[in-house]
Amino acid sequence: MNAIEKFSIVRISEEGENDTEDVIARECSLTIILNNQELATILCSPTNLEYLAVGFLFSEGLLKSKDEIKKIVLDTERGVVRVATEEAGELAQGVSFREFITSGGGKGLQPCSAIAGTSRAKIKSQTQVSAPEVFALVNEFVQHSKVFKATGGVHSAALCHTKGILVFSEDIGRHNAIDKVFGECILRDIPMDDHMIITSGRISSEILLKVVKGNIPILISKSAPTNLGVRLADELGITLIGFVRGKKMNIYTNRWRVVAQRHE
Amino acid sequence: MNAIEKFSIVRISEEGENDTEDVIARECSLTIILNNQELATILCSPTNLEYLAVGFLFSEGLLKSKDEIKKIVLDTERGVVRVATEEAGELAQGVSFREFITSGGGKGLQPCSAIAGTSRAKIKSQTQVSAPEVFALVNEFVQHSKVFKATGGVHSAALCHTKGILVFSEDIGRHNAIDKVFGECILRDIPMDDHMIITSGRISSEILLKVVKGNIPILISKSAPTNLGVRLADELGITLIGFVRGKKMNIYTNRWRVVAQRHE
Repeated sequence: MNAIEKFSIVRISEEGENDTEDVIARECSLTIILNNQELATILCSPTNLEYLAVGFLFSEGLLKSKDEIKKIVLDTERGVVRVATEEAGELAQGVSFREFITSGGGKGLQPCSAIAGTSRAKIKSQTQVSAPEVFALVNEFVQHSKVFKATGGVHSAALCHTKGILVFSEDIGRHNAIDKVFGECILRDIPMDDHMIITSGRISSEILLKVVKGNIPILISKSAPTNLGVRLADELGITLIGFVRGKKMNIYTNRWRVVAQRHE
Repeated sequence: MNAIEKFSIVRISEEGENDTEDVIARECSLTIILNNQELATILCSPTNLEYLAVGFLFSEGLLKSKDEIKKIVLDTERGVVRVATEEAGELAQGVSFREFITSGGGKGLQPCSAIAGTSRAKIKSQTQVSAPEVFALVNEFVQHSKVFKATGGVHSAALCHTKGILVFSEDIGRHNAIDKVFGECILRDIPMDDHMIITSGRISSEILLKVVKGNIPILISKSAPTNLGVRLADELGITLIGFVRGKKMNIYTNRWRVVAQRHE
């Protein structure tokens, strides 16, 4: 299904009023069913829904690798994806889910305590990146964002290494865009360790807790972080770079991974 | 609690690298308890939390007016707000909730069918607004957005009439910002009918379903809508105006409420 739809609109500007056509981001709902258990209904862009489902399960800690997946059946007509895994017995006992609709994440499975602090091991990857590389990557990222350019209504996310973007996604939800990247990496056997995530969206605690699941040492955003996003990045050993615009950027945490000149 | 926190960061620009201080939006979690039943834990900005709680309950259809509220007790230390209403018996039978964390809305109580269409009555308000008034209101709105100006990390929302802003709020979540406006209107007895909502955020189906609860005829955004946002606005009789920037704007639906010159 196409990510955009055209609508007749009225545009008002200093030149006056005119009837025109606008390109608008599509929104659909996807219900994710894991081993016959309905977990969530997500509002999302109608593209790469298998990636979204797998990435969602990975972000929620319900799936660790491709090997666990027995079957994925996507019903685009009904907006349902069914994932069958090897771990059928465990989920039913360990976690109890309820349906909810969200485009903004709200994956809702972290306890409150996860926000204040975390007992996770720090990310130890020695990956480094130079400032010119960050600027070049974000520039490439912006060039890739075709649905955003057309509609202004979606977020983007990408997995990259210092030389370029490996996996790219767009979605009306900033959480979904990252989940789609995770899902594609898992299904296409692309390693995430020692890589970077770029996102167009703001960096809240939820985004940090997602990125740490991918064991990703460097998180780059075009936007602002929250205070808990910065704290978690610091505690988790993640290098957080924000407000990358043109040749400017802010390094919030673990700055040792950003070097003037990278030695290969 | 203050909406911002200062952090030491490294800023890189064409002038080089320097250690500086950055002002960052604070994020906290608020658990909403209605009549001793825990409904949700929301990630939000730590301001006007009573308004947020009341607006959340209103958006979810669990509260209709101030008269129903018996008591609101906010524990800022623990991030918990308890609301007691007259309708204690009904909720337990009618709806079953589970805790979830979200900053992006995900209020999760609408059935999927609500997205595709709706059986709600159309909003019939005859309120009109002129294009110059919209530009002036959005300009005033931007001037109000002090936390956004300081941090770049929050959304804003406002209730206004044609002459100016009546209620204004900021929050890290675009849904929360609107809920805070609703909550303030309810607690301060400010009528919402025949008024307008301005939001900095994108307009998805969830935002439309929220705004229709307030019986609000005109929704103005600085950002893009989704296709379902446009469809719902059309069906619900809401005038949807997007991409208001400088002296430009797009009118997506029910354009009859936007006039060249308003007659008073």
